Amino acid sequence: MSNDSFLLRHVHLATFVPELADYGLLPDAALWVQDGHIAWLGAEQDLPAGLPDCPEQDGQGAWLTPGLIDCHTHLVYGGNRAHEFELRLQGARYEEIARAGGGIRSTVQHTRAADEATLLQSALRRLDDLLAEGVTTVEIKSGYGLSRDDEARMLRVAGQLAQARAVSVQRTCLAAHALPPEFAGDADGYIDAICQWLPQWHAEGLVDAVDAFCENIGFSPAQTERLFQCAQQLGLPVKLHAEQLSNQGGAALVARYHGLSADHLEWLSASGIEAMAQQGTVAVLLPGAFYYLRETRLPPIDALRAAGVPMAVATDCNPGTSPMTSLLLALNMACTLFRLTPAEALAGATREAARALGLLHDRGTLEVGKRADLALWAIHHPRELVYTLGARPLLQRWVAGQAS
Amino acid sequence: MSNDSFLLRHVHLATFVPELADYGLLPDAALWVQDGHIAWLGAEQDLPAGLPDCPEQDGQGAWLTPGLIDCHTHLVYGGNRAHEFELRLQGARYEEIARAGGGIRSTVQHTRAADEATLLQSALRRLDDLLAEGVTTVEIKSGYGLSRDDEARMLRVAGQLAQARAVSVQRTCLAAHALPPEFAGDADGYIDAICQWLPQWHAEGLVDAVDAFCENIGFSPAQTERLFQCAQQLGLPVKLHAEQLSNQGGAALVARYHGLSADHLEWLSASGIEAMAQQGTVAVLLPGAFYYLRETRLPPIDALRAAGVPMAVATDCNPGTSPMTSLLLALNMACTLFRLTPAEALAGATREAARALGLLHDRGTLEVGKRADLALWAIHHPRELVYTLGARPLLQRWVAGQAS
Ligand SMILES: [Zn+2]
Ligand SMILES: [Zn+2]
Repeated sequence: MSNDSFLLRHVHLATFVPELADYGLLPDAALWVQDGHIAWLGAEQDLPAGLPDCPEQDGQGAWLTPGLIDCHTHLVYGGNRAHEFELRLQGARYEEIARAGGGIRSTVQHTRAADEATLLQSALRRLDDLLAEGVTTVEIKSGYGLSRDDEARMLRVAGQLAQARAVSVQRTCLAAHALPPEFAGDADGYIDAICQWLPQWHAEGLVDAVDAFCENIGFSPAQTERLFQCAQQLGLPVKLHAEQLSNQGGAALVARYHGLSADHLEWLSASGIEAMAQQGTVAVLLPGAFYYLRETRLPPIDALRAAGVPMAVATDCNPGTSPMTSLLLALNMACTLFRLTPAEALAGATREAARALGLLHDRGTLEVGKRADLALWAIHHPRELVYTLGARPLLQRWVAGQAS
Repeated sequence: MSNDSFLLRHVHLATFVPELADYGLLPDAALWVQDGHIAWLGAEQDLPAGLPDCPEQDGQGAWLTPGLIDCHTHLVYGGNRAHEFELRLQGARYEEIARAGGGIRSTVQHTRAADEATLLQSALRRLDDLLAEGVTTVEIKSGYGLSRDDEARMLRVAGQLAQARAVSVQRTCLAAHALPPEFAGDADGYIDAICQWLPQWHAEGLVDAVDAFCENIGFSPAQTERLFQCAQQLGLPVKLHAEQLSNQGGAALVARYHGLSADHLEWLSASGIEAMAQQGTVAVLLPGAFYYLRETRLPPIDALRAAGVPMAVATDCNPGTSPMTSLLLALNMACTLFRLTPAEALAGATREAARALGLLHDRGTLEVGKRADLALWAIHHPRELVYTLGARPLLQRWVAGQAS
């Protein structure tokens, strides 16, 4: 009997199994984990006799959910942008901040200057904030290196995080995040370079998916599409920062490439929604950046809901526009600012976040056969996780059946 | 030598002493605590020879601030309002929620039904969230009992919190929060009743200050003034929930009574600002409620700043309009939503929060003679405390020189 087998009794389950609707409630339940996977779950009174002998834990009426999944972060970076935040609040204009070395260029400089140990240490601090709230899987993008070696270093550090802590890390190559100084004025040349580097990063096992920033101030749809074709040839799934500041048709583009998700979406059009619905592309909502930038244009939640587009919610943790390491706070903002229901928000950090990472077969709900990534909470109802701001309700976390 | 004496070396200080401006920075410093009070602080290199022998701690370049002060909370209450939050997001109208037993009446019912142990236990959970972020003093209001016995029970529980944890609690009587069912249609009669009960609560040592909700849906300025006169006769300082939803002239009223603070202030007028500036009344800003209610009218920050009105920031932790137990989050919201600078926000949770509680002589800055209420942080600059969302940077907390 391995130590990732146990029986958890006297818990209430929020399974997020679609058939049970909303939270997928299963009160007064038990859950049996064998070899790191869920082997049985159901009402406490239906607990089968003759389960193999294994450690038992009394949940004492706490609530169990799938481990939370943060499906969109830029967790690895050098430096921070607190000074820029302060300058802006002191009334500095954009040009002054740029002259003072602010903006994404500052993060690229600090990231390039930082060695792996430094990047790892600062990212661990942020990761620990997420884990303290029940996160068991986190997606991490590159995108502040913007060169072959610096992007690879970011992706290696992202992998080291999964060695240093009990957490799954999905690595996304976001080399097409901004134009590096070496390619100033030559975005097409930079896309060519990424398409050269990508096979090598992929061969080293550093990449689970490919992302880009498709925007007026980022890369054009045509450039994005060339990158997607390159990813497609390698068999890598794609996703996209789309329609955050303007409607570029990015959502329809990523849907056309059977992408995992289109993320941000404040300027998403009706045709973009239709394309996403047809392809099952997940809409990843990032209310932290909306809040931090004091945006006023909301993503079209009602239309997404009506079209049946799956909606996930993530922190977008990044130094410039969302220095947020609380997924529960992102869920509250998804409700308060974007008007998701608490059940939608929580599904967005479990089932739909798993779908956005292509991992729904393996996690994201409490179902027999899935990995025992679990979070136990001192609450009276799962909606409390979303209703509160700054609470610390996590009792325990398991990754593949291992308590941590 | 008592165990509340020690020497902390190799720290950077954010003293919030006004003469040093902004954060009151004192880098590369040391701080000596004797008998629970700050006995010396200054540059590491100026450390006097011949200090009495006491334990030494190496701060290793971390930052030390005054312990944080949350100067406006409703931390003690029964039940919660997560269901109402969910109903509203599911599209329920105000009347439906009221019919479902929602609103402040629901909290009054749950608070009245809860015994002291139950109230204490739920409040401890919220208090622990605050303490985990470096809070060392918290103000707690009554206002969900609305009867002689139920208000007294809330205030007793608030006092018990200070026994159960290392924290100072300031207790505010907010019996004039809402009209209890027993006085339906008779707000004047209820004010009379409070004025009868108050001397007894005061005699039992349950009250440090008196507050009211002066609003169209609360109590009129005339009723508020009668309550203030009653407080004045007992020598109790007053404060006021003022100008949150409309301009009632509450700020000028509380200033006229030499009140400690006027709180909320979204609808504050120019004459209200002038009255506050003349009397030194603190403006307590509560961006959590502004965020949670999706208000659009901002408190007049520029005018308050120009008039020299001291500004504090607090969580307003309460179950209906700000279920927030993160003071750092309130500080970020004060910057992001209200456009305070990070230095103003942090001063608002230290020096100005102490002023708002009438405790500035004793705490709120790092100065010789003040209580050693301290917070040590793993940051590179104090502005990072305000820039991040959901970070957990606290290393250590001291209350009156005692580490906890
Ligand atoms: Zn992003
Ligand atoms: Zn209040």
